[in-house]
Amino acid sequence: MRLENRAPDALRPVRIQRQFTKYAAGSVLVTFGDTQVLCTATLEDRTPPWLAGKGSGWVTAEYAMLPGCSNERIGRNHYQKGRAMEISRLIGRSLRCAVDMAALGERQITVDCDVIQADGGTRTAAITGAFVALSDACAKLQADGAISRSPLLGECAAVSVGLVDGEALLDLCYEEDVRAEVDMNVVMRSDGNLIEVQGCAEGDAFPRKQLDAMLDLAEAGCGELFRLQREALAS
Amino acid sequence: MRLENRAPDALRPVRIQRQFTKYAAGSVLVTFGDTQVLCTATLEDRTPPWLAGKGSGWVTAEYAMLPGCSNERIGRNHYQKGRAMEISRLIGRSLRCAVDMAALGERQITVDCDVIQADGGTRTAAITGAFVALSDACAKLQADGAISRSPLLGECAAVSVGLVDGEALLDLCYEEDVRAEVDMNVVMRSDGNLIEVQGCAEGDAFPRKQLDAMLDLAEAGCGELFRLQREALAS
Amino acid sequence: MRLENRAPDALRPVRIQRQFTKYAAGSVLVTFGDTQVLCTATLEDRTPPWLAGKGSGWVTAEYAMLPGCSNERIGRNHYQKGRAMEISRLIGRSLRCAVDMAALGERQITVDCDVIQADGGTRTAAITGAFVALSDACAKLQADGAISRSPLLGECAAVSVGLVDGEALLDLCYEEDVRAEVDMNVVMRSDGNLIEVQGCAEGDAFPRKQLDAMLDLAEAGCGELFRLQREALAS
Amino acid sequence: MRLENRAPDALRPVRIQRQFTKYAAGSVLVTFGDTQVLCTATLEDRTPPWLAGKGSGWVTAEYAMLPGCSNERIGRNHYQKGRAMEISRLIGRSLRCAVDMAALGERQITVDCDVIQADGGTRTAAITGAFVALSDACAKLQADGAISRSPLLGECAAVSVGLVDGEALLDLCYEEDVRAEVDMNVVMRSDGNLIEVQGCAEGDAFPRKQLDAMLDLAEAGCGELFRLQREALAS
Amino acid sequence: MRLENRAPDALRPVRIQRQFTKYAAGSVLVTFGDTQVLCTATLEDRTPPWLAGKGSGWVTAEYAMLPGCSNERIGRNHYQKGRAMEISRLIGRSLRCAVDMAALGERQITVDCDVIQADGGTRTAAITGAFVALSDACAKLQADGAISRSPLLGECAAVSVGLVDGEALLDLCYEEDVRAEVDMNVVMRSDGNLIEVQGCAEGDAFPRKQLDAMLDLAEAGCGELFRLQREALAS
Amino acid sequence: MRLENRAPDALRPVRIQRQFTKYAAGSVLVTFGDTQVLCTATLEDRTPPWLAGKGSGWVTAEYAMLPGCSNERIGRNHYQKGRAMEISRLIGRSLRCAVDMAALGERQITVDCDVIQADGGTRTAAITGAFVALSDACAKLQADGAISRSPLLGECAAVSVGLVDGEALLDLCYEEDVRAEVDMNVVMRSDGNLIEVQGCAEGDAFPRKQLDAMLDLAEAGCGELFRLQREALAS
Repeated sequence: MRLENRAPDALRPVRIQRQFTKYAAGSVLVTFGDTQVLCTATLEDRTPPWLAGKGSGWVTAEYAMLPGCSNERIGRNHYQKGRAMEISRLIGRSLRCAVDMAALGERQITVDCDVIQADGGTRTAAITGAFVALSDACAKLQADGAISRSPLLGECAAVSVGLVDGEALLDLCYEEDVRAEVDMNVVMRSDGNLIEVQGCAEGDAFPRKQLDAMLDLAEAGCGELFRLQREALAS
Repeated sequence: MRLENRAPDALRPVRIQRQFTKYAAGSVLVTFGDTQVLCTATLEDRTPPWLAGKGSGWVTAEYAMLPGCSNERIGRNHYQKGRAMEISRLIGRSLRCAVDMAALGERQITVDCDVIQADGGTRTAAITGAFVALSDACAKLQADGAISRSPLLGECAAVSVGLVDGEALLDLCYEEDVRAEVDMNVVMRSDGNLIEVQGCAEGDAFPRKQLDAMLDLAEAGCGELFRLQREALAS
Repeated sequence: MRLENRAPDALRPVRIQRQFTKYAAGSVLVTFGDTQVLCTATLEDRTPPWLAGKGSGWVTAEYAMLPGCSNERIGRNHYQKGRAMEISRLIGRSLRCAVDMAALGERQITVDCDVIQADGGTRTAAITGAFVALSDACAKLQADGAISRSPLLGECAAVSVGLVDGEALLDLCYEEDVRAEVDMNVVMRSDGNLIEVQGCAEGDAFPRKQLDAMLDLAEAGCGELFRLQREALAS
Repeated sequence: MRLENRAPDALRPVRIQRQFTKYAAGSVLVTFGDTQVLCTATLEDRTPPWLAGKGSGWVTAEYAMLPGCSNERIGRNHYQKGRAMEISRLIGRSLRCAVDMAALGERQITVDCDVIQADGGTRTAAITGAFVALSDACAKLQADGAISRSPLLGECAAVSVGLVDGEALLDLCYEEDVRAEVDMNVVMRSDGNLIEVQGCAEGDAFPRKQLDAMLDLAEAGCGELFRLQREALAS
Repeated sequence: MRLENRAPDALRPVRIQRQFTKYAAGSVLVTFGDTQVLCTATLEDRTPPWLAGKGSGWVTAEYAMLPGCSNERIGRNHYQKGRAMEISRLIGRSLRCAVDMAALGERQITVDCDVIQADGGTRTAAITGAFVALSDACAKLQADGAISRSPLLGECAAVSVGLVDGEALLDLCYEEDVRAEVDMNVVMRSDGNLIEVQGCAEGDAFPRKQLDAMLDLAEAGCGELFRLQREALAS
Repeated sequence: MRLENRAPDALRPVRIQRQFTKYAAGSVLVTFGDTQVLCTATLEDRTPPWLAGKGSGWVTAEYAMLPGCSNERIGRNHYQKGRAMEISRLIGRSLRCAVDMAALGERQITVDCDVIQADGGTRTAAITGAFVALSDACAKLQADGAISRSPLLGECAAVSVGLVDGEALLDLCYEEDVRAEVDMNVVMRSDGNLIEVQGCAEGDAFPRKQLDAMLDLAEAGCGELFRLQREALAS
């Protein structure tokens, strides 16, 4: 059995707390069980140099773990290493699939995702929370009259799935994650389309029908997350 | 008048929230008005190499601002630059004056101070919160039987003072800080002794009697902070 | 139509040239059409520190593009940046799924994958060639009597697939890659199991049935690559 | 007793040697006993980017120790670390309090302070010498007709004070510095005002009346240094 | 006797293979015995900033060893260290002596020299091959009509010479190189003039008449290399 | 005519001032005309790791320019770049040819050469001064009884030569250096043998008989430098 009698297809308790800090254009503390990520969206009235003058905006992201987020302290310059950069790139790519860059106009939104507490699934929690911070930043642009309509194309959410003792499980906590034979992250848009699928054998290769079972779980999990995002944004 | 009719010798509302996260040995969210710093203390069963085998422990600190903590985004590798290193060193030195290193034994406590929201006085809030996180880590060592008595020599707290339009003010917010002619940080121990005094003219030099007036304010402010620390630790 | 009348499910001409250089334990020049990657495997009689004394070996990889491999020169320190580190990690993870680490013993094999000419699919060509270089290094260990049986669990190969104008295509060249709506890399083991699946929307999200179509193509493509690897290793 | 029967309130022999090198706009070798610092001021006809077009100049400083300046060799990239950056910032801030930036005009003066021999008090010797190098650079600007009047607001000097065995001592040498319970650096302007006060407990906290005693010593010491600076500049 | 009965004044078998890759403006695989260097020349329509607007071009080079080029793996960030930078600078300087920069016009050619297999004399092989890659890039500029005449002033080639057991030898392989008392590299232009002479005692100093003997060998060796370069460029 | 009627074969006034600072084992301020380099030799009772336990010592060097040594300020991290590393390596190699490493025993001497004033020929002045600092460090080892006889094999000195308007000149100052067609550095040992010869065309190639003329000048110049070194060491 999973911790707290969780069903194989159940998310951990998810909370999306908006306006966690007051200076950033969007600031969301997202929690998936004991995983907590602070996502802050900052607006800048300029694009990266290679986009200048093209009438298009840009969305990017940076991911880092705070040193005290887990049992062992994580060195602070760790964030420059491969894993954190890889995750930063994943979050940025995912968010960009949910935004009409022309409608955003020549400005950049950077979403910083800082992991305050890590219990597995930090990157998928980060994407789910980052979308809400991004939404708040876009709403601020509209409220300020900088843009006339929302550049968002739908919600964007992500969830982890995995194979533990041969069984497909949704939203793995750390303890499950270290035991998983396969670790997979799925990013979706609320129209039901896929944005990113990253499945990775941990130790041993896996059959395709297991891939299918995990995708089924992830689709259902993302559906629930879209609902929670909309609920948070409506409140 | 100061914001919200604050008196020149009044602190902003201070809150010290313990156990903000669950994995670190000590985890404190400290707020001074709109300034918020997350302080997490991590234990390691080793000392820096140059202390090995000397029967003595070590306390160190790292300070950084989260990118979205203020109105303009702060680049993430900023922390390596001079200012953040200087503040990290100040916090570490201050905490070490409140600890009997022999009583701590051959282990290291690292306190990470991450500024979540910045409205002036982040380094003094960090010291004040870091001491409480450090206390919780020491209490954990005692509870685990690793040490038999507390290695703490008293509370350690810090506050900023400044000269604004020629008047000495306690605990400056950002808006006051940028207007201040003198910016000063005072770190004290609860026995009434000074740990560190850093006064710095911003633009113009200042007379010694102004230094004295600021020190008077800081002493009173630290007294109030010691009371709040004890209250938080007792709860 | 694709270049040179290639069918949607056809690989580009693949060549696997062993012993391209003479000092490395394995040295393979792999070509997928105009993409050329030099893969060299080096043996070291030590493991990473965290594995020492555990009776287990390690396989790792580094990927870099030579500055002159494409039309525009690529700066040489580029390799440290996110993309190259991400690909290095992918190659290492993939190869490790094809090796029994206990059978390898306490030694490390590093496979360096240097892209000599880049026309799309460099990471999948790199994995396919790296496996052959790894095989040669393992054979050398057996020939030298360092290990008594091969630590390999089967062949490991990879191929890119993508969605171009809504059609699933196998093994994209650069020109197809830049036009693709979805870019996907699939790593497999010769027992038919999946090692890694990375599908990524470029600009727009995509339906799951397209994911399935691309996986079908990739499975067939990897089957052909396993055959070519065995052929090369037999010669 | 102090070395060479020095009184508690006595400076070490101080020498300020101008025009030590010939290419820099100002070049001063300052010695406080066995501490020797080479201070060279360089002129540049541009300001930092953030000051451009504001009609104001800038003064900055860099501090480093030559590798062979003390008994043990100091690694050369050491200067990038926290301590050297902190001291560089202190020197720059101090000098800026002695300069009318509008009168300087849109140009930058950089004062490099390289410690040739270190016997305690290198940062305060550096400030004292750097001011003289800065004066020479300003005089050169006047002589060249670039500015019509001196931008200097008075002399700027600094001295260390400390508490050794409970007694306040002026201008600590290295041997005294390592034994000191409190280490303090005071920067003053020749109008008697304070520029910077940095007092720091080494190991134990200290009462405020000791702070006062140290400030008294420092004021007198700086008075003597202003006299020596004027003497050097007059010669 | 030398390996394969080579005479003291004989080069190893030299091969110059043009168009080794297809995207770079010039791409040459040069081999001196078992030493193999891939030289690719890239064109850019801009000069370094300090040359902008002066009507003059620039030629520069970067040298690196691929990690698997020799028996022991060479770490990839090794290239930033002293030796590789020194060799990069040597190659750039040498090539520039063979080019009329005004005739090249305001553009830059970068020649990357990546050592694929190392058996001594990699830097001299790199220069010899880089010149041919540079020639091809210049020919491309002429063919494209960007320049009306060749900017080349003659061929440029280089060879190593050394003193082994007191005897002067031409074109040392690795085994000879590690035994050599003196190691010397000579770069020449096809008009018989010297571009660079770098002779360096390995362990012990050497008499001038040995220098003369080595220069004689190098002159003859470079003569042969000019012939081979012309032959390759004519084919 | 050269400045101050200097003959083509004349050195600038050379001064070798020992014991310039007091903590380093050897400390020499060497001046060649307006070029001034501070050379300090530091002793360490350990060798680099790759020499440990082999009964042999090591001599190494680091070269850097102080930021204010010339008319334009030189950035401080400049020393990591190619030129400074190349010169550091040259100085270390040169000194090692003058030392019997077995006689030195398992210890390391590091000579830091910091250019205080630069007017051409800084690397050759550095070698000439560094040898004297090295001698003083070796004498200290003998005086301390650490070694029983001097490990020095003779003096080591260096001088620059060049071709200006077709004429060979000894010991170029900066103004001559920028006009020189060829720039050459020659390092010799006092037994008349060569340690290093580095001749480099600046812009155009040069005939071998000019090389010979420059070597003649350099031999005579080094002879004079050996005499000055012996004189300084005897005083």
